[in-house]
Amino acid sequence: MKTYLDCIPCFFKQALEAARIAGAGKKTQKRILNELAGALPKFPLSSSPPEMGKVIYGLAKRITKKDDPYLRIKEKSNKLALNIYDKLKKKVSHSRDRLLMAVELAIAGNIIDYGVKNSLNVDAELARILNEENKAIKKESKAIFDYESFKHVLNNTETILYLADNAGETVFDRILIEEIRRIDRNKKIIYAVKEKPVINDALIKDALDCSIDKIAQVISSGSDAPGTVLSLCSKEFLRVYKRVDMVISKGQGNFEALSGTKRPVFFLFMAKCPVIAQDVGCEVGEVILLYRSLEELEKLK
Amino acid sequence: MKTYLDCIPCFFKQALEAARIAGAGKKTQKRILNELAGALPKFPLSSSPPEMGKVIYGLAKRITKKDDPYLRIKEKSNKLALNIYDKLKKKVSHSRDRLLMAVELAIAGNIIDYGVKNSLNVDAELARILNEENKAIKKESKAIFDYESFKHVLNNTETILYLADNAGETVFDRILIEEIRRIDRNKKIIYAVKEKPVINDALIKDALDCSIDKIAQVISSGSDAPGTVLSLCSKEFLRVYKRVDMVISKGQGNFEALSGTKRPVFFLFMAKCPVIAQDVGCEVGEVILLYRSLEELEKLK
Repeated sequence: MKTYLDCIPCFFKQALEAARIAGAGKKTQKRILNELAGALPKFPLSSSPPEMGKVIYGLAKRITKKDDPYLRIKEKSNKLALNIYDKLKKKVSHSRDRLLMAVELAIAGNIIDYGVKNSLNVDAELARILNEENKAIKKESKAIFDYESFKHVLNNTETILYLADNAGETVFDRILIEEIRRIDRNKKIIYAVKEKPVINDALIKDALDCSIDKIAQVISSGSDAPGTVLSLCSKEFLRVYKRVDMVISKGQGNFEALSGTKRPVFFLFMAKCPVIAQDVGCEVGEVILLYRSLEELEKLK
Repeated sequence: MKTYLDCIPCFFKQALEAARIAGAGKKTQKRILNELAGALPKFPLSSSPPEMGKVIYGLAKRITKKDDPYLRIKEKSNKLALNIYDKLKKKVSHSRDRLLMAVELAIAGNIIDYGVKNSLNVDAELARILNEENKAIKKESKAIFDYESFKHVLNNTETILYLADNAGETVFDRILIEEIRRIDRNKKIIYAVKEKPVINDALIKDALDCSIDKIAQVISSGSDAPGTVLSLCSKEFLRVYKRVDMVISKGQGNFEALSGTKRPVFFLFMAKCPVIAQDVGCEVGEVILLYRSLEELEKLK
């Protein structure tokens, strides 16, 4: 996805949020906004928002000299999600369609994102996910939900690359990966996180803290953009990306980075802003399972 | 009011909105955002938001070469408001406290503001104002509503300067001015509009279109900032501003520009953004009648 002009005010909002999370004083906050302003004219709109995200969080890190301002938030998110792991597992095992429930929970886990919503209360949101009422609302609004294709491709797949999004969400990913492995123990699953800290995106440490390494091979994308921008990823990662049978991409950032690229991908995310909702053709807050199949990629050309 | 860092993302949003209203293409929209980015580092946060507003709308005008992009919107707002003038008058005449109703309507008229809310539907909003249910909600939330002081000062006043905000809202101002004159025909009322086009702010033409000149002397502030920034006003205006017994200031822009200055002012506005709500100590969407009296100004020093 290219960057829309409406993303620009949001870039400044994100920079301010990052500066504050890093504990910057007002002068430093203003300096970060000024530097972002200086970078803006050179930034091409043909780039995807995560490319600008890398610039934003990079300059916030450099100026505040805090390498990982979201560390505590990530640790808290992991802990909170691990605390409800048993409840989530029960939800899956009590479902008529266990895989569907695991997919839905994996997408719902995507709301743990401090990068887009500022004052999101993780506790309340997690409680809301488990709330039956909300569950019903989610089911009604399934405008884009390519679950049949997901099942079909999954059944004909040996290797899966699973692109992680945020810390905490990793626990929800674990639930889905465990469900996939329950169906077929022989599938090889590779779980890719970010190389270095950016917003609350999951790193190798988060994957290990959530025990993903017990059920999948954990690798890094080689990049610290808040989305899998292929031109910034390592050769090792790209080799995997090209070779696997199926790619499951979590979160808005990965969608923004990959929706314009060539290979078929299943995008699982919640549409968190009006710009992406318009790009996808859905409502803000909608739960999306979007398959960019080979046929569709041909049509988009 | 000084500019808060949270105003900065909103400046970019406003610039984009102004560019689009002026019919600019995407390249021109980006150019306007780039130029705003260039101006940002030089802009001191000690200035009030309307001073930056003047820069934003000035560069949108210069680059799009449209002198008055909001002309049609203003004309439409005047027309819409004039269409409900009789209804508004009836509302006042059927009220137990006519002056209170006129004050409330004058503040409610302030929601006709394309500068802050982007997709505000004027028709629906005007209907909502006349809706009894909404009226009840408004009454409950009167946290800051210095109506007793307003009545007291009004009774001991011979000359009033009434600072206009937006086109359309002028009709609601007319209702309040007519009510003030009904109580005392001898009061001299001066109605001040902006000198040149900026957003949808009322100009002399709008005041005349809404027949304000029949009940008040219409003057200009001498400035095209979207708020009465005293350092940018004409000498003639400043003479009036200093000499009158009472100043009634309409809208958020005038509050932002004048809340830090020395003379007592009655501010009538609806708090439209979280930043101003926090500054004032109210909720977003709340109807405010705030008196900065001499005593309070002394305390604030």
